[in-house]
Amino acid sequence: MKKLIAEFIGTFWLVLGGCGSAVLAAGFPELGIGFLGVALAFGLTVVTMAYAIGHISGCHLNPAVSIGLAVGGRFDKKDLVPYIIAQVMGAIAGAGVLYLIVSGKSGFEIGGFAANGYGEHSPGGYDMLSAFVTEAVLTFFFLIIILGATHSKAPKYMAGLAIGLGLTLIHLISIPVTNTSVNPARSTSQALFAEGTWAIPQLWLFWAAPIVGAILAGMVYKMISPEKK
Amino acid sequence: MKKLIAEFIGTFWLVLGGCGSAVLAAGFPELGIGFLGVALAFGLTVVTMAYAIGHISGCHLNPAVSIGLAVGGRFDKKDLVPYIIAQVMGAIAGAGVLYLIVSGKSGFEIGGFAANGYGEHSPGGYDMLSAFVTEAVLTFFFLIIILGATHSKAPKYMAGLAIGLGLTLIHLISIPVTNTSVNPARSTSQALFAEGTWAIPQLWLFWAAPIVGAILAGMVYKMISPEKK
Amino acid sequence: MKKLIAEFIGTFWLVLGGCGSAVLAAGFPELGIGFLGVALAFGLTVVTMAYAIGHISGCHLNPAVSIGLAVGGRFDKKDLVPYIIAQVMGAIAGAGVLYLIVSGKSGFEIGGFAANGYGEHSPGGYDMLSAFVTEAVLTFFFLIIILGATHSKAPKYMAGLAIGLGLTLIHLISIPVTNTSVNPARSTSQALFAEGTWAIPQLWLFWAAPIVGAILAGMVYKMISPEKK
Amino acid sequence: MKKLIAEFIGTFWLVLGGCGSAVLAAGFPELGIGFLGVALAFGLTVVTMAYAIGHISGCHLNPAVSIGLAVGGRFDKKDLVPYIIAQVMGAIAGAGVLYLIVSGKSGFEIGGFAANGYGEHSPGGYDMLSAFVTEAVLTFFFLIIILGATHSKAPKYMAGLAIGLGLTLIHLISIPVTNTSVNPARSTSQALFAEGTWAIPQLWLFWAAPIVGAILAGMVYKMISPEKK
Repeated sequence: MKKLIAEFIGTFWLVLGGCGSAVLAAGFPELGIGFLGVALAFGLTVVTMAYAIGHISGCHLNPAVSIGLAVGGRFDKKDLVPYIIAQVMGAIAGAGVLYLIVSGKSGFEIGGFAANGYGEHSPGGYDMLSAFVTEAVLTFFFLIIILGATHSKAPKYMAGLAIGLGLTLIHLISIPVTNTSVNPARSTSQALFAEGTWAIPQLWLFWAAPIVGAILAGMVYKMISPEKK
Repeated sequence: MKKLIAEFIGTFWLVLGGCGSAVLAAGFPELGIGFLGVALAFGLTVVTMAYAIGHISGCHLNPAVSIGLAVGGRFDKKDLVPYIIAQVMGAIAGAGVLYLIVSGKSGFEIGGFAANGYGEHSPGGYDMLSAFVTEAVLTFFFLIIILGATHSKAPKYMAGLAIGLGLTLIHLISIPVTNTSVNPARSTSQALFAEGTWAIPQLWLFWAAPIVGAILAGMVYKMISPEKK
Repeated sequence: MKKLIAEFIGTFWLVLGGCGSAVLAAGFPELGIGFLGVALAFGLTVVTMAYAIGHISGCHLNPAVSIGLAVGGRFDKKDLVPYIIAQVMGAIAGAGVLYLIVSGKSGFEIGGFAANGYGEHSPGGYDMLSAFVTEAVLTFFFLIIILGATHSKAPKYMAGLAIGLGLTLIHLISIPVTNTSVNPARSTSQALFAEGTWAIPQLWLFWAAPIVGAILAGMVYKMISPEKK
Repeated sequence: MKKLIAEFIGTFWLVLGGCGSAVLAAGFPELGIGFLGVALAFGLTVVTMAYAIGHISGCHLNPAVSIGLAVGGRFDKKDLVPYIIAQVMGAIAGAGVLYLIVSGKSGFEIGGFAANGYGEHSPGGYDMLSAFVTEAVLTFFFLIIILGATHSKAPKYMAGLAIGLGLTLIHLISIPVTNTSVNPARSTSQALFAEGTWAIPQLWLFWAAPIVGAILAGMVYKMISPEKK
């Protein structure tokens, strides 16, 4: 139960911090933090939670991460469903608090919130194939980083930093393509609050592509660097 | 006494570095550091002091942090008042030196200095409720990060980095809402120097909200990850 | 063989992440990450892979690095050719995936991709001599950082971070001069996809200069801080 | 002798990297790195060299640092003069290579290079008193960070990172005031190459103020946290 509370809190923070910086601060006139600041914010939600709750729940904060770790033999498959539920609930709660904050701005419009999208809802106008490839390949590498940095031969004190900065890097590459997900819980939470009816019909891709990438990474990493039992 | 001098120096640095970068460098024409640079500066004041004076005083630099640590069972309640006095005095001294530097610019105007505010004094025009929720929730997470990263099961060498980068993240999210406080000493120091009469009447929120968030975090973290005595 | 797969994956990531951020995100209207974001992205590809695959292959990701380490007595010369082949192949594969993603943007033009160049193909119009000196000197320092940070007297847990941030620094200096290579595999991968016929004739410099710098660094570092056998 | 070569190489890198990023990349149209990128670059020269040559010479790279460490009882006074000579020579050599690179740009003008200045040569028009206070106070804190992070009770693996990021923070605050020195060797190297006759007459301040701040810090830190012999 403590693990599930920790995953709930951590994913709440990922959404409030990452999506919050995007919605509140990215486009502020002249002084805004831009995509670079949003990329940093997403990464730092993971860096901070890794050191804060890593010793409690492992700090997955992401259904694709839990699945990839399970495939890679690092996470017990029977904990998958409760972890994913806690993550999605935490993400939605974080989005709710963000909605509350945003709605206190005079003349606010929620617009697309920080929802992920492709085609005409891609920030840079990338099509569905580009979006799928991007999300799958980047989640593949995210899991390679996670599986590697938490490997018994890697310096474990640095794992949280390497993994969080990996998420920053992923955002530096791909915000223009899909607004960057690699995390189905994050995507779901934003789709529920976004204006209009487009975000939920596009949500399938932000579950399917990250999970495909994560499963592949679990299989590949186990091959190139198996853990001794 | 050494502890109090350390807290004085550290909070001096937090205000000079964080508020100083905001006042001196954020809006410099074309090359200015923007909110992203200010967010980084605030975080790095904590990173640097954590390694410089952490072994002397614990490097709180913030009344809300001292209170949250006391509630969480990590800091002796009888040291609370002297710590808070040292922090507020250090913050005011840092603001004074910053004022001296700023006043050497030809044609300078102090304006709002780096004071925190809500309503019409929120950089992005957020109302009092948004400001309160933002400050309380972000201080809650700041304390979760601090309590977690300094927990005996977390890698203690990384705590200063994780906590400082947590403060960077908090600024990436919330400068548009309240100019970001999460630190009553920082807010007080700026309100004293800001032009006009609005900053001091709004100061209550930047004591109340961070302290509420910090107390809550102390209680929650003790529940999900108690320290063995 | 596992080492070669690791070098392939790592160099794939360096190109997808570094060149990808440059092509996809640097110049995005108003919110783009600029040279600063690209510099960070290149560095973080190395930080993340250092902790993910460092324990497998040493994480060179760069023919000049492998050569410099061999000259410095830290890498077996007989592994040089297979490593370099794996790196160049990984880089080309990464460029291919990036090409696929980019081509899904409506109205895309590949332009110079993220190719390196001098003279009229230098972003800031620097001539061949400036380009050669820049690439040789920066690769020299890159290898000094690598040889130093992985020295037995240096704290080995920090090596990946120091080396990756060194690559960030190198980009902060030199994107305007050559678009920054210091890595012949990275340059080759981009030249193959860039539009026009200029990039391949200029490719010699981005093999020659980094290798000259790397060899020199291997010799100098061995002199000032030899490893005991 | 190895120590002096290491200080020469390290200070060369500080000037080439820090001043180089300022001269080459800060003001690049639309994509330039701005003051934030320059601040990061200066800090990363120290981070990278700390791990590369820290175990050889201690990685001072700065006459004020050597003096402050000597006053604080951490550096042998008889090594002061040779260290300072090596640092100044390295800085000048770095500036020379930077000059060579810059001069390969079509239509280049050297302008003020990255020289430090006050009054009409302050980037933001700050007067001499502001400049002196800024340089003295920031060097004071730089030495507090250095003396603290390398203290026997601090986690020594993190010292290079904390100190380098401290230099980044110092630049985030003060580039608008003096173009940031806190390092007499860096200032001297730029004054020699800058166009016009103003930089050398202003050079006294960038020796005097940092040294005053460093001496003070050495005395204060020894008081609040003495090293046991």
